[in-house]
Amino acid sequence: MINQVEGRSENLSSLEFAVRDYECDLQGVVNNANYQHYLEHARHEFLISMGISFSQLHDEGTDLTVTRVEIDYKYPLRSRDRFVVKSAIKKEGNIRLAFVQDIYRIPDGKHIVSAKVTGVATQKGKPSRPDKIFSLLNLK
Amino acid sequence: MINQVEGRSENLSSLEFAVRDYECDLQGVVNNANYQHYLEHARHEFLISMGISFSQLHDEGTDLTVTRVEIDYKYPLRSRDRFVVKSAIKKEGNIRLAFVQDIYRIPDGKHIVSAKVTGVATQKGKPSRPDKIFSLLNLK
Amino acid sequence: MINQVEGRSENLSSLEFAVRDYECDLQGVVNNANYQHYLEHARHEFLISMGISFSQLHDEGTDLTVTRVEIDYKYPLRSRDRFVVKSAIKKEGNIRLAFVQDIYRIPDGKHIVSAKVTGVATQKGKPSRPDKIFSLLNLK
Amino acid sequence: MINQVEGRSENLSSLEFAVRDYECDLQGVVNNANYQHYLEHARHEFLISMGISFSQLHDEGTDLTVTRVEIDYKYPLRSRDRFVVKSAIKKEGNIRLAFVQDIYRIPDGKHIVSAKVTGVATQKGKPSRPDKIFSLLNLK
Repeated sequence: MINQVEGRSENLSSLEFAVRDYECDLQGVVNNANYQHYLEHARHEFLISMGISFSQLHDEGTDLTVTRVEIDYKYPLRSRDRFVVKSAIKKEGNIRLAFVQDIYRIPDGKHIVSAKVTGVATQKGKPSRPDKIFSLLNLK
Repeated sequence: MINQVEGRSENLSSLEFAVRDYECDLQGVVNNANYQHYLEHARHEFLISMGISFSQLHDEGTDLTVTRVEIDYKYPLRSRDRFVVKSAIKKEGNIRLAFVQDIYRIPDGKHIVSAKVTGVATQKGKPSRPDKIFSLLNLK
Repeated sequence: MINQVEGRSENLSSLEFAVRDYECDLQGVVNNANYQHYLEHARHEFLISMGISFSQLHDEGTDLTVTRVEIDYKYPLRSRDRFVVKSAIKKEGNIRLAFVQDIYRIPDGKHIVSAKVTGVATQKGKPSRPDKIFSLLNLK
Repeated sequence: MINQVEGRSENLSSLEFAVRDYECDLQGVVNNANYQHYLEHARHEFLISMGISFSQLHDEGTDLTVTRVEIDYKYPLRSRDRFVVKSAIKKEGNIRLAFVQDIYRIPDGKHIVSAKVTGVATQKGKPSRPDKIFSLLNLK
Protein backbone atom coordinates (compact mmCIF):
# COMPACT_ATOMS: atom_id res chain seq x y z
CA MET A 1 0.00 0.00 0.00
CA ILE A 2 3.02 2.24 0.52
CA ASN A 3 5.11 3.12 -2.49
CA GLN A 4 8.48 4.44 -1.55
CA VAL A 5 10.71 6.45 -3.77
CA GLU A 6 13.95 6.61 -1.87
CA GLY A 7 15.94 9.74 -2.37
CA ARG A 8 18.99 11.34 -1.01
CA SER A 9 17.49 14.19 0.92
CA GLU A 10 13.95 13.07 1.32
CA ASN A 11 11.82 9.98 1.31
CA LEU A 12 8.30 9.62 -0.08
CA SER A 13 5.26 7.48 0.56
CA SER A 14 1.57 7.51 -0.24
CA LEU A 15 -1.33 5.83 1.56
CA GLU A 16 -4.97 5.59 0.50
CA PHE A 17 -8.02 6.07 2.74
CA ALA A 18 -11.78 6.53 2.42
CA VAL A 19 -13.82 8.85 4.66
CA ARG A 20 -16.00 7.03 7.19
CA ASP A 21 -19.33 8.63 8.15
CA TYR A 22 -18.41 8.96 11.84
CA GLU A 23 -15.47 11.19 10.85
CA CYS A 24 -17.86 13.86 9.53
CA ASP A 25 -19.48 16.49 11.71
CA LEU A 26 -22.61 18.63 11.82
CA GLN A 27 -21.57 20.53 8.72
CA GLY A 28 -21.46 17.38 6.62
CA VAL A 29 -17.69 17.47 6.16
CA VAL A 30 -14.72 15.75 7.83
CA ASN A 31 -14.06 17.42 11.20
CA ASN A 32 -10.80 19.40 11.14
CA ALA A 33 -9.20 17.33 13.90
CA ASN A 34 -9.68 14.11 11.95
CA TYR A 35 -7.22 15.22 9.27
CA GLN A 36 -4.57 15.03 12.00
CA HIS A 37 -5.58 11.41 12.53
CA TYR A 38 -5.15 10.67 8.84
CA LEU A 39 -1.77 12.43 8.78
CA GLU A 40 -0.58 10.63 11.93
CA HIS A 41 -1.60 7.22 10.58
CA ALA A 42 0.20 7.91 7.30
CA ARG A 43 3.38 8.95 9.16
CA HIS A 44 3.35 5.85 11.37
CA GLU A 45 2.82 3.51 8.43
CA PHE A 46 5.60 5.29 6.57
CA LEU A 47 8.10 4.96 9.43
CA ILE A 48 7.20 1.32 10.00
CA SER A 49 7.66 0.60 6.29
CA MET A 50 11.19 1.98 6.66
CA GLY A 51 11.97 -0.39 9.52
CA ILE A 52 11.48 2.15 12.30
CA SER A 53 9.73 0.56 15.25
CA PHE A 54 8.53 2.91 17.99
CA SER A 55 8.58 0.20 20.62
CA GLN A 56 12.11 -0.94 19.72
CA LEU A 57 13.32 2.67 19.70
CA HIS A 58 11.64 3.21 23.05
CA ASP A 59 13.39 0.15 24.48
CA GLU A 60 16.64 1.67 23.27
CA GLY A 61 15.81 4.92 25.06
CA THR A 62 14.76 7.02 22.06
CA ASP A 63 11.32 8.59 21.54
CA LEU A 64 9.92 10.54 18.60
CA THR A 65 7.66 13.47 19.53
CA VAL A 66 5.67 15.92 17.43
CA THR A 67 6.57 19.50 18.37
CA ARG A 68 4.70 21.50 15.74
CA VAL A 69 1.85 21.04 13.28
CA GLU A 70 0.84 23.44 10.49
CA ILE A 71 -2.20 22.56 8.40
CA ASP A 72 -3.73 24.52 5.53
CA TYR A 73 -7.31 23.47 4.85
CA LYS A 74 -7.98 24.03 1.16
CA TYR A 75 -11.14 22.09 0.46
CA PRO A 76 -13.27 19.77 2.61
CA LEU A 77 -13.67 16.00 2.27
CA ARG A 78 -17.18 14.53 2.52
CA SER A 79 -18.68 11.18 3.42
CA ARG A 80 -17.20 8.26 1.46
CA ASP A 81 -14.68 10.42 -0.44
CA ARG A 82 -11.53 8.49 -1.27
CA PHE A 83 -8.19 10.23 -0.81
CA VAL A 84 -4.46 9.72 -0.68
CA VAL A 85 -2.00 11.09 1.89
CA LYS A 86 1.40 11.76 0.33
CA SER A 87 4.24 12.15 2.82
CA ALA A 88 7.81 13.29 2.37
CA ILE A 89 10.32 13.29 5.19
CA LYS A 90 13.48 15.34 5.50
CA LYS A 91 16.04 16.50 8.02
CA GLU A 92 15.60 19.90 9.56
CA GLY A 93 18.86 20.84 11.19
CA ASN A 94 20.68 18.18 13.17
CA ILE A 95 18.00 16.86 15.49
CA ARG A 96 14.66 17.55 13.81
CA LEU A 97 12.63 15.65 11.25
CA ALA A 98 10.00 17.37 9.11
CA PHE A 99 7.15 15.61 7.37
CA VAL A 100 5.63 17.47 4.45
CA GLN A 101 2.21 15.93 3.89
CA ASP A 102 -0.51 16.57 1.33
CA ILE A 103 -3.97 15.11 0.96
CA TYR A 104 -5.50 14.76 -2.51
CA ARG A 105 -9.00 13.53 -3.31
CA ILE A 106 -9.28 10.46 -5.54
CA PRO A 107 -9.80 10.26 -8.46
CA ASP A 108 -9.82 13.95 -9.43
CA GLY A 109 -6.65 14.96 -7.57
CA LYS A 110 -8.32 17.94 -5.85
CA HIS A 111 -5.87 19.36 -3.28
CA ILE A 112 -7.54 19.04 0.14
CA VAL A 113 -4.89 19.68 2.79
CA SER A 114 -1.28 20.79 2.86
CA ALA A 115 0.61 20.16 6.12
CA LYS A 116 4.02 20.28 7.74
CA VAL A 117 4.64 18.26 10.88
CA THR A 118 7.88 18.69 12.79
CA GLY A 119 9.22 16.13 15.22
CA VAL A 120 12.20 15.71 17.44
CA ALA A 121 13.98 12.66 18.81
CA THR A 122 14.66 12.58 22.53
CA GLN A 123 16.85 10.34 24.64
CA LYS A 124 15.90 10.23 28.29
CA GLY A 125 13.77 13.32 27.71
CA LYS A 126 16.52 15.37 26.07
CA PRO A 127 16.61 16.21 22.34
CA SER A 128 19.23 14.11 20.61
CA ARG A 129 20.51 13.52 17.11
CA PRO A 130 18.71 10.38 15.85
CA ASP A 131 21.51 8.92 13.78
CA LYS A 132 19.91 5.50 13.54
CA ILE A 133 16.64 6.99 12.27
CA PHE A 134 18.40 9.23 9.75
CA SER A 135 20.29 6.18 8.53
CA LEU A 136 17.18 3.98 8.21
CA LEU A 137 15.47 6.82 6.33
CA ASN A 138 18.51 7.21 4.08
CA LEU A 139 18.73 10.93 4.96
CA LYS A 140 22.06 12.70 4.81
CA MET B 1 -19.28 17.09 40.90
CA ILE B 2 -20.06 13.54 41.98
CA ASN B 3 -22.78 13.04 44.54
CA GLN B 4 -22.61 9.66 46.13
CA VAL B 5 -25.41 7.97 47.96
CA GLU B 6 -23.77 4.96 49.49
CA GLY B 7 -25.98 1.96 49.89
CA ARG B 8 -25.67 -1.60 50.97
CA SER B 9 -26.13 -3.34 47.66
CA GLU B 10 -25.37 -0.58 45.25
CA ASN B 11 -23.62 2.71 45.00
CA LEU B 12 -24.76 5.77 43.08
CA SER B 13 -23.16 8.76 41.40
CA SER B 14 -24.10 11.43 38.91
CA LEU B 15 -21.88 13.50 36.63
CA GLU B 16 -22.85 16.43 34.39
CA PHE B 17 -21.67 17.05 30.82
CA ALA B 18 -22.51 19.27 27.85
CA VAL B 19 -22.41 18.09 24.22
CA ARG B 20 -19.49 19.46 22.22
CA ASP B 21 -20.02 20.12 18.50
CA TYR B 22 -17.32 17.66 17.41
CA GLU B 23 -19.25 14.85 19.11
CA CYS B 24 -22.14 15.27 16.67
CA ASP B 25 -22.25 13.63 13.27
CA LEU B 26 -23.76 14.20 9.83
CA GLN B 27 -27.28 13.74 11.16
CA GLY B 28 -26.89 16.63 13.61
CA VAL B 29 -26.99 14.40 16.69
CA VAL B 30 -24.39 12.87 19.00
CA ASN B 31 -22.79 9.88 17.24
CA ASN B 32 -23.83 6.59 18.88
CA ALA B 33 -20.27 5.63 19.81
CA ASN B 34 -19.76 8.85 21.77
CA TYR B 35 -22.32 7.81 24.37
CA GLN B 36 -19.87 5.04 25.28
CA HIS B 37 -17.26 7.74 25.90
CA TYR B 38 -19.62 9.59 28.23
CA LEU B 39 -20.51 6.37 30.07
CA GLU B 40 -16.84 5.35 30.39
CA HIS B 41 -15.81 8.75 31.73
CA ALA B 42 -18.64 8.65 34.31
CA ARG B 43 -17.59 5.15 35.44
CA HIS B 44 -13.94 6.13 35.81
CA GLU B 45 -14.77 9.27 37.79
CA PHE B 46 -17.11 7.20 39.97
CA LEU B 47 -14.50 4.57 40.75
CA ILE B 48 -11.82 7.17 41.44
CA SER B 49 -14.20 9.02 43.79
CA MET B 50 -14.49 5.75 45.73
CA GLY B 51 -10.73 5.45 46.11
CA ILE B 52 -10.22 2.91 43.35
CA SER B 53 -7.08 3.69 41.37
CA PHE B 54 -6.55 1.73 38.16
CA SER B 55 -2.82 2.24 38.25
CA GLN B 56 -2.50 1.13 41.89
CA LEU B 57 -4.71 -1.91 41.19
CA HIS B 58 -2.59 -2.68 38.14
CA ASP B 59 0.59 -2.51 40.22
CA GLU B 60 -1.04 -4.99 42.59
CA GLY B 61 -1.76 -7.32 39.66
CA THR B 62 -5.49 -6.64 39.27
CA ASP B 63 -7.18 -5.23 36.15
CA LEU B 64 -10.79 -4.26 35.52
CA THR B 65 -12.11 -5.10 32.05
CA VAL B 66 -15.44 -4.42 30.34
CA THR B 67 -16.89 -7.68 29.01
CA ARG B 68 -20.34 -6.58 27.85
CA VAL B 69 -22.17 -3.37 26.96
CA GLU B 70 -25.91 -3.00 26.37
CA ILE B 71 -27.22 0.42 25.34
CA ASP B 72 -30.81 1.42 24.58
CA TYR B 73 -30.96 4.65 22.58
CA LYS B 74 -34.22 6.38 23.49
CA TYR B 75 -33.78 9.91 22.23
CA PRO B 76 -30.83 11.76 20.65
CA LEU B 77 -28.75 14.54 22.19
CA ARG B 78 -27.92 17.58 20.04
CA SER B 79 -25.23 20.25 19.98
CA ARG B 80 -24.77 22.03 23.32
CA ASP B 81 -27.41 19.93 25.15
CA ARG B 82 -26.58 19.53 28.82
CA PHE B 83 -27.05 16.12 30.40
CA VAL B 84 -26.32 14.03 33.46
CA VAL B 85 -25.00 10.46 33.57
CA LYS B 86 -26.36 8.59 36.60
CA SER B 87 -24.45 5.44 37.49
CA ALA B 88 -25.23 2.67 39.95
CA ILE B 89 -22.84 -0.18 40.62
CA LYS B 90 -23.65 -3.61 42.00
CA LYS B 91 -22.22 -7.08 42.32
CA GLU B 92 -23.21 -9.65 39.75
CA GLY B 93 -22.31 -13.04 41.14
CA ASN B 94 -18.93 -13.40 42.82
CA ILE B 95 -16.54 -11.93 40.31
CA ARG B 96 -18.53 -9.50 38.18
CA LEU B 97 -19.48 -5.87 38.62
CA ALA B 98 -22.43 -4.34 36.78
CA PHE B 99 -22.88 -0.63 36.16
CA VAL B 100 -26.44 0.45 35.46
CA GLN B 101 -26.18 3.83 33.77
CA ASP B 102 -28.77 6.30 32.53
CA ILE B 103 -28.42 9.58 30.67
CA TYR B 104 -30.99 12.32 31.21
CA ARG B 105 -31.13 15.66 29.42
CA ILE B 106 -30.93 18.79 31.58
CA PRO B 107 -33.11 20.56 32.59
CA ASP B 108 -36.17 18.68 31.35
CA GLY B 109 -35.13 15.20 32.51
CA LYS B 110 -35.80 13.61 29.10
CA HIS B 111 -34.52 10.00 29.20
CA ILE B 112 -31.82 9.73 26.52
CA VAL B 113 -29.97 6.46 27.08
CA SER B 114 -30.31 3.43 29.32
CA ALA B 115 -27.26 1.18 29.61
CA LYS B 116 -25.80 -1.77 31.45
CA VAL B 117 -22.05 -2.31 31.44
CA THR B 118 -20.58 -5.49 32.89
CA GLY B 119 -16.98 -5.80 34.00
CA VAL B 120 -14.76 -8.43 35.47
CA ALA B 121 -11.63 -8.25 37.60
CA THR B 122 -8.67 -10.29 36.48
CA GLN B 123 -5.43 -11.23 38.21
CA LYS B 124 -2.63 -12.18 35.88
CA GLY B 125 -5.24 -12.52 33.12
CA LYS B 126 -7.56 -14.84 35.06
CA PRO B 127 -10.95 -13.74 36.43
CA SER B 128 -10.73 -13.29 40.19
CA ARG B 129 -12.97 -12.14 43.03
CA PRO B 130 -12.10 -8.46 43.59
CA ASP B 131 -12.55 -8.38 47.36
CA LYS B 132 -10.71 -5.10 47.78
CA ILE B 133 -12.89 -3.40 45.15
CA PHE B 134 -16.10 -4.80 46.63
CA SER B 135 -14.96 -3.51 50.01
CA LEU B 136 -14.08 -0.02 48.75
CA LEU B 137 -17.45 0.12 46.99
CA ASN B 138 -19.20 -1.03 50.17
CA LEU B 139 -20.85 -3.90 48.25
CA LYS B 140 -21.84 -7.06 50.11
CA MET C 1 -14.26 -5.41 -0.57
CA ILE C 2 -17.72 -6.62 0.41
CA ASN C 3 -18.63 -10.19 -0.40
CA GLN C 4 -22.33 -10.74 -0.29
CA VAL C 5 -24.02 -14.06 0.03
CA GLU C 6 -27.63 -13.29 -0.61
CA GLY C 7 -30.09 -15.45 1.25
CA ARG C 8 -33.74 -15.64 1.86
CA SER C 9 -33.84 -14.64 5.50
CA GLU C 10 -30.56 -12.91 5.94
CA ASN C 11 -27.83 -11.19 4.04
CA LEU C 12 -24.09 -11.33 4.72
CA SER C 13 -21.08 -9.12 4.16
CA SER C 14 -17.52 -8.84 5.39
CA LEU C 15 -15.22 -5.83 5.49
CA GLU C 16 -11.53 -5.70 6.40
CA PHE C 17 -9.81 -3.06 8.59
CA ALA C 18 -6.50 -2.50 10.36
CA VAL C 19 -6.17 -0.86 13.78
CA ARG C 20 -4.73 2.67 13.68
CA ASP C 21 -2.60 3.82 16.63
CA TYR C 22 -4.93 6.70 17.54
CA GLU C 23 -7.73 4.18 18.13
CA CYS C 24 -5.84 2.64 21.06
CA ASP C 25 -5.97 4.00 24.58
CA LEU C 26 -3.83 4.14 27.71
CA GLN C 27 -4.07 0.39 28.18
CA GLY C 28 -2.50 -0.28 24.79
CA VAL C 29 -5.67 -1.76 23.30
CA VAL C 30 -8.45 -0.43 21.07
CA ASN C 31 -10.78 1.75 23.18
CA ASN C 32 -14.18 0.07 23.66
CA ALA C 33 -16.09 2.88 21.94
CA ASN C 34 -14.05 2.49 18.76
CA TYR C 35 -15.48 -0.98 18.10
CA GLN C 36 -18.83 0.80 17.64
CA HIS C 37 -17.17 2.93 14.96
CA TYR C 38 -15.94 -0.18 13.16
CA LEU C 39 -19.36 -1.83 13.40
CA GLU C 40 -21.15 1.33 12.17
CA HIS C 41 -18.81 1.71 9.20
CA ALA C 42 -19.33 -1.96 8.25
CA ARG C 43 -23.14 -1.55 8.44
CA HIS C 44 -23.12 1.59 6.30
CA GLU C 45 -20.89 0.02 3.65
CA PHE C 46 -23.12 -3.06 3.68
CA LEU C 47 -26.34 -1.09 3.16
CA ILE C 48 -24.78 1.05 0.44
CA SER C 49 -23.55 -2.09 -1.35
CA MET C 50 -27.20 -3.24 -1.40
CA GLY C 51 -28.35 -0.03 -3.04
CA ILE C 52 -29.67 1.59 0.13
CA SER C 53 -28.84 5.28 0.18
CA PHE C 54 -29.45 7.15 3.44
CA SER C 55 -29.79 10.49 1.70
CA GLN C 56 -32.24 9.16 -0.90
CA LEU C 57 -34.28 7.45 1.83
CA HIS C 58 -34.24 10.67 3.83
CA ASP C 59 -35.50 12.63 0.82
CA GLU C 60 -38.33 10.10 0.59
CA GLY C 61 -39.15 10.70 4.26
CA THR C 62 -37.64 7.52 5.74
CA ASP C 63 -34.83 7.38 8.32
CA LEU C 64 -32.98 4.41 9.82
CA THR C 65 -32.14 4.74 13.52
CA VAL C 66 -30.21 2.49 15.89
CA THR C 67 -32.34 1.73 18.95
CA ARG C 68 -30.22 -0.86 20.76
CA VAL C 69 -26.61 -2.09 20.80
CA GLU C 70 -25.30 -5.20 22.58
CA ILE C 71 -21.57 -5.88 22.43
CA ASP C 72 -19.65 -8.75 23.99
CA TYR C 73 -15.95 -7.97 24.27
CA LYS C 74 -14.08 -11.27 24.05
CA TYR C 75 -10.50 -10.31 23.37
CA PRO C 76 -8.80 -6.97 22.69
CA LEU C 77 -7.30 -5.73 19.43
CA ARG C 78 -3.92 -3.99 19.54
CA SER C 79 -2.03 -1.52 17.39
CA ARG C 80 -1.82 -2.54 13.72
CA ASP C 81 -3.88 -5.74 14.17
CA ARG C 82 -5.83 -6.59 11.03
CA PHE C 83 -9.42 -7.76 11.42
CA VAL C 84 -12.63 -8.45 9.55
CA VAL C 85 -16.15 -7.35 10.50
CA LYS C 86 -18.74 -9.90 9.38
CA SER C 87 -22.30 -8.61 9.29
CA ALA C 88 -25.59 -10.42 8.79
CA ILE C 89 -28.90 -8.59 8.57
CA LYS C 90 -32.37 -9.96 9.26
CA LYS C 91 -35.91 -8.87 9.95
CA GLU C 92 -37.01 -8.68 13.53
CA GLY C 93 -40.78 -8.48 13.52
CA ASN C 94 -42.44 -6.21 11.00
CA ILE C 95 -40.61 -2.94 11.48
CA ARG C 96 -37.20 -3.75 12.93
CA LEU C 97 -33.91 -4.76 11.36
CA ALA C 98 -31.23 -6.59 13.34
CA PHE C 99 -27.57 -6.70 12.42
CA VAL C 100 -25.60 -9.59 13.88
CA GLN C 101 -21.95 -8.57 13.68
CA ASP C 102 -18.73 -10.33 14.62
CA ILE C 103 -15.15 -9.17 14.57
CA TYR C 104 -12.35 -11.69 13.93
CA ARG C 105 -8.64 -10.98 13.99
CA ILE C 106 -6.70 -11.71 10.79
CA PRO C 107 -5.07 -14.09 10.04
CA ASP C 108 -5.67 -16.35 13.06
CA GLY C 109 -9.47 -15.93 13.23
CA LYS C 110 -9.44 -15.10 16.95
CA HIS C 111 -12.97 -14.03 17.94
CA ILE C 112 -12.72 -10.42 19.20
CA VAL C 113 -16.26 -9.04 19.45
CA SER C 114 -19.78 -10.36 19.07
CA ALA C 115 -22.53 -7.76 18.64
CA LYS C 116 -26.19 -7.29 17.85
CA VAL C 117 -27.41 -3.91 16.65
CA THR C 118 -31.14 -3.27 16.29
CA GLY C 119 -32.57 -0.49 14.14
CA VAL C 120 -35.95 0.81 13.21
CA ALA C 121 -37.23 2.72 10.20
CA THR C 122 -39.24 5.83 10.83
CA GLN C 123 -41.40 7.97 8.57
CA LYS C 124 -41.92 11.52 9.79
CA GLY C 125 -40.64 10.37 13.18
CA LYS C 126 -43.00 7.40 13.52
CA PRO C 127 -41.86 3.77 13.25
CA SER C 128 -42.94 2.33 9.91
CA ARG C 129 -42.55 -0.91 7.98
CA PRO C 130 -39.62 -0.33 5.58
CA ASP C 131 -40.93 -2.39 2.66
CA LYS C 132 -38.50 -0.87 0.18
CA ILE C 133 -35.52 -1.66 2.43
CA PHE C 134 -36.71 -5.21 3.08
CA SER C 135 -37.07 -5.64 -0.67
CA LEU C 136 -33.63 -4.26 -1.50
CA LEU C 137 -32.16 -6.54 1.17
CA ASN C 138 -34.09 -9.49 -0.24
CA LEU C 139 -35.61 -10.18 3.20
CA LYS C 140 -39.00 -11.87 3.43
CA MET D 1 -17.47 29.60 32.76
CA ILE D 2 -16.29 32.12 30.18
CA ASN D 3 -14.76 35.33 31.44
CA GLN D 4 -14.62 37.98 28.81
CA VAL D 5 -12.37 40.96 28.86
CA GLU D 6 -13.61 43.05 26.00
CA GLY D 7 -11.00 45.15 24.28
CA ARG D 8 -10.74 47.36 21.29
CA SER D 9 -8.57 45.23 19.08
CA GLU D 10 -9.05 41.82 20.57
CA ASN D 11 -11.40 39.86 22.74
CA LEU D 12 -10.47 37.29 25.38
CA SER D 13 -12.05 34.22 26.96
CA SER D 14 -10.99 31.25 29.02
CA LEU D 15 -12.63 27.86 29.39
CA GLU D 16 -11.71 25.03 31.77
CA PHE D 17 -11.54 21.30 30.93
CA ALA D 18 -10.26 18.07 32.42
CA VAL D 19 -8.62 15.28 30.40
CA ARG D 20 -10.80 12.19 29.97
CA ASP D 21 -9.08 8.80 29.78
CA TYR D 22 -10.39 8.02 26.28
CA GLU D 23 -8.58 11.12 24.98
CA CYS D 24 -5.20 9.58 25.82
CA ASP D 25 -3.35 7.21 23.53
CA LEU D 26 -0.84 4.37 23.70
CA GLN D 27 1.87 6.67 25.01
CA GLY D 28 -0.20 7.63 28.06
CA VAL D 29 -0.68 11.24 26.94
CA VAL D 30 -3.46 13.16 25.17
CA ASN D 31 -3.39 12.31 21.46
CA ASN D 32 -2.21 15.29 19.38
CA ALA D 33 -5.47 15.51 17.40
CA ASN D 34 -7.53 15.90 20.58
CA TYR D 35 -5.98 19.29 21.32
CA GLN D 36 -7.73 20.48 18.16
CA HIS D 37 -11.00 19.30 19.69
CA TYR D 38 -10.32 21.30 22.85
CA LEU D 39 -9.38 24.40 20.84
CA GLU D 40 -12.47 24.07 18.60
CA HIS D 41 -14.80 23.69 21.57
CA ALA D 42 -13.28 26.76 23.24
CA ARG D 43 -13.69 28.82 20.04
CA HIS D 44 -17.33 27.79 19.61
CA GLU D 45 -18.20 28.58 23.23
CA PHE D 46 -16.42 31.90 22.88
CA LEU D 47 -18.32 32.91 19.74
CA ILE D 48 -21.66 31.82 21.21
CA SER D 49 -20.95 33.82 24.36
CA MET D 50 -20.56 36.87 22.09
CA GLY D 51 -23.95 36.32 20.48
CA ILE D 52 -22.64 34.70 17.31
CA SER D 53 -24.88 31.83 16.26
CA PHE D 54 -23.58 29.58 13.48
CA SER D 55 -27.06 28.46 12.50
CA GLN D 56 -28.42 32.01 12.35
CA LEU D 57 -25.39 33.15 10.34
CA HIS D 58 -25.87 30.19 8.02
CA ASP D 59 -29.53 31.11 7.51
CA GLU D 60 -28.32 34.58 6.58
CA GLY D 61 -25.93 33.09 4.02
CA THR D 62 -22.67 33.45 5.98
CA ASP D 63 -20.37 30.61 7.04
CA LEU D 64 -17.19 30.63 9.12
CA THR D 65 -14.47 28.24 7.97
CA VAL D 66 -11.06 27.37 9.40
CA THR D 67 -8.39 27.81 6.74
CA ARG D 68 -5.18 27.30 8.72
CA VAL D 69 -4.09 25.78 12.04
CA GLU D 70 -0.66 26.12 13.66
CA ILE D 71 -0.03 24.27 16.91
CA ASP D 72 3.15 24.17 18.98
CA TYR D 73 3.17 21.23 21.37
CA LYS D 74 5.24 22.24 24.38
CA TYR D 75 4.38 19.68 27.03
CA PRO D 76 1.88 16.79 27.11
CA LEU D 77 -1.30 16.53 29.18
CA ARG D 78 -2.01 13.25 30.97
CA SER D 79 -5.10 11.46 32.28
CA ARG D 80 -7.25 13.62 34.56
CA ASP D 81 -5.07 16.74 34.20
CA ARG D 82 -7.11 19.90 34.50
CA PHE D 83 -6.38 22.73 32.08
CA VAL D 84 -7.63 26.04 30.74
CA VAL D 85 -7.88 27.15 27.11
CA LYS D 86 -7.34 30.90 26.76
CA SER D 87 -8.52 32.38 23.48
CA ALA D 88 -8.03 35.82 21.97
CA ILE D 89 -9.62 36.84 18.71
CA LYS D 90 -8.51 39.59 16.35
CA LYS D 91 -8.96 40.82 12.80
CA GLU D 92 -6.40 39.79 10.23
CA GLY D 93 -6.82 42.04 7.26
CA ASN D 94 -10.35 42.78 6.10
CA ILE D 95 -11.90 39.35 5.81
CA ARG D 96 -9.97 37.07 8.15
CA LEU D 97 -10.27 36.33 11.86
CA ALA D 98 -7.39 34.91 13.86
CA PHE D 99 -7.73 33.08 17.15
CA VAL D 100 -4.63 33.00 19.30
CA GLN D 101 -5.13 30.15 21.75
CA ASP D 102 -3.03 28.81 24.60
CA ILE D 103 -3.50 25.83 26.88
CA TYR D 104 -2.18 25.95 30.45
CA ARG D 105 -2.28 23.14 32.98
CA ILE D 106 -4.12 23.82 36.24
CA PRO D 107 -3.07 24.62 38.90
CA ASP D 108 0.62 25.07 38.09
CA GLY D 109 0.18 27.12 34.91
CA LYS D 110 2.53 24.90 32.87
CA HIS D 111 2.34 26.00 29.22
CA ILE D 112 1.05 23.01 27.21
CA VAL D 113 0.08 24.26 23.77
CA SER D 114 0.34 27.49 21.82
CA ALA D 115 -1.86 27.78 18.72
CA LYS D 116 -3.06 30.14 16.04
CA VAL D 117 -6.21 29.32 14.11
CA THR D 118 -7.21 31.42 11.11
CA GLY D 119 -10.73 31.53 9.73
CA VAL D 120 -12.55 33.26 6.95
CA ALA D 121 -16.16 34.23 6.48
CA THR D 122 -17.81 33.23 3.23
CA GLN D 123 -21.08 34.26 1.63
CA LYS D 124 -22.41 31.82 -0.95
CA GLY D 125 -18.99 30.19 -0.96
CA LYS D 126 -17.04 33.42 -1.58
CA PRO D 127 -14.85 35.11 1.05
CA SER D 128 -16.59 38.22 2.36
CA ARG D 129 -16.03 40.89 4.97
CA PRO D 130 -18.02 39.74 8.03
CA ASP D 131 -19.08 43.18 9.30
CA LYS D 132 -21.76 41.80 11.58
CA ILE D 133 -19.28 39.40 13.24
CA PHE D 134 -16.63 42.12 13.62
CA SER D 135 -19.28 44.31 15.21
CA LEU D 136 -20.53 41.62 17.63
CA LEU D 137 -16.90 40.94 18.59
CA ASN D 138 -16.28 44.64 19.07
CA LEU D 139 -13.32 44.51 16.67
CA LYS D 140 -12.32 47.60 14.77
